[in-house]
Amino acid sequence: MVIIGELINSTRKKIKEAMENRDSAYISDLAKKQDEAGSDYIDVNAGAFVEGETEILKWAMNEVQQVTEKPIAIDSPRGSSIAEGLKIHQNGKPMINSITKETDRWNEIFPLVVESDSHILCLCIDNSGIPESADERARIASEIIDDLTKAGKPISDIAIDPLTTPLSVNTGYGLVVIDTVRMIKERYPEVKCITGLSNISYGLPARRQVNRAFVVMGMAHGLDGALLDPLDRTMMSMIRASEALLNKDPFCAGFLKAFRSGLVSKE
Amino acid sequence: MVIIGELINSTRKKIKEAMENRDSAYISDLAKKQDEAGSDYIDVNAGAFVEGETEILKWAMNEVQQVTEKPIAIDSPRGSSIAEGLKIHQNGKPMINSITKETDRWNEIFPLVVESDSHILCLCIDNSGIPESADERARIASEIIDDLTKAGKPISDIAIDPLTTPLSVNTGYGLVVIDTVRMIKERYPEVKCITGLSNISYGLPARRQVNRAFVVMGMAHGLDGALLDPLDRTMMSMIRASEALLNKDPFCAGFLKAFRSGLVSKE
Repeated sequence: MVIIGELINSTRKKIKEAMENRDSAYISDLAKKQDEAGSDYIDVNAGAFVEGETEILKWAMNEVQQVTEKPIAIDSPRGSSIAEGLKIHQNGKPMINSITKETDRWNEIFPLVVESDSHILCLCIDNSGIPESADERARIASEIIDDLTKAGKPISDIAIDPLTTPLSVNTGYGLVVIDTVRMIKERYPEVKCITGLSNISYGLPARRQVNRAFVVMGMAHGLDGALLDPLDRTMMSMIRASEALLNKDPFCAGFLKAFRSGLVSKE
Repeated sequence: MVIIGELINSTRKKIKEAMENRDSAYISDLAKKQDEAGSDYIDVNAGAFVEGETEILKWAMNEVQQVTEKPIAIDSPRGSSIAEGLKIHQNGKPMINSITKETDRWNEIFPLVVESDSHILCLCIDNSGIPESADERARIASEIIDDLTKAGKPISDIAIDPLTTPLSVNTGYGLVVIDTVRMIKERYPEVKCITGLSNISYGLPARRQVNRAFVVMGMAHGLDGALLDPLDRTMMSMIRASEALLNKDPFCAGFLKAFRSGLVSKE
């Protein structure tokens, strides 16, 4: 399971403040904690800043890179910021988060994605917005994958976000995500499906419980990764347990190691 | 999701002691708590007593029936005990737990099952023991279902336990259970699949985490119920969340109600 630690995101009030104040200690502490909790990537998002986003993104990326060797998920709606972020990225292969099939965004980010040695997380959105059905989402995913691979992007660098939308809006959305994952994995087994989990529980109480159940359910149907709060130790415990249950963890070694390191809670 | 509260089981040391001492308070308290936590059935098992099992089973059933209106899962390896249990059962339709395709047990319990107005939980075991593969388990399930329905047992009264065996023995067993459930539900959509969950984590640390992930994973593939510890509030929270995620809980009403009643934990 690919874990993208989602906490350094400027849409969160405390993070925005820390970014405004260039609070190194706060950002780097959060990067370190997410690394230690088992993140494979640390997401960095400064998108809430209309002015100066690029500078803040670069500052935060540098803070992160000083305390962890994990690659960064460079998270921005703007191609220019992603381009600058890619230039200063140091540890391993970065992830571009994200691209959509909306014409403007696509045209801006597509060349960057193809030219750079990066993973790319692609959202199933086109000019008509977020599609309701799994069929439509899978269709957009296919278009994205086909266009990228035709331009030379290795298929194993491509990840699709089936787009998790709130259950409180439509109780069918959980199954839509699962069906989308199943369709994409059937057609493109090498493509990874990675989703921003927590949207599923928007508007519901006990959100963590819903998020945890949803990640397990997704994994049971082929989900390869998630943007999530890796400091939710119960969530991470469920993920490690699920890897073992799906026979993806020989001798349960990963689960046992995580347990010994204190990353799996006993209760 | 059909929840069978598993705690009143004589293989547990404290329960055996309470049964030996005819400790009414202990047994009835546990029955009440399991009822309040959302059990649909209260399992009662006195099978650890070689002598006097029937009397102890009846005593414990009566204790349970005085404090809850939930039906009982009459849990015994002996046909004679089940027969006596059925006679004194009061609340709703009982569940017989369990029958197997082992010739002796089958011949003893089969008539009881067919004649009584009861649900029946059937284990995928025959004379050669617990089969390794999902195919074999599904084959035994088919034999059991076909024999019972031919004898006039309504198919909706039949539940199959795909037999949860420990991941620590074979890391493929999680998938074997899931595949068995899928096969049975495909062939007999009206038959319920209900399993004794906790075996999956036998021999592993942090067993509750594994059990919780396993129940969600099972539900994602059609599992209809489980014998489990309903006092594990996090487990029950995951189950309620999973029902909503699978679009089996209109308007998330069950989840919200469980939350308001304190049955879903916030964290």
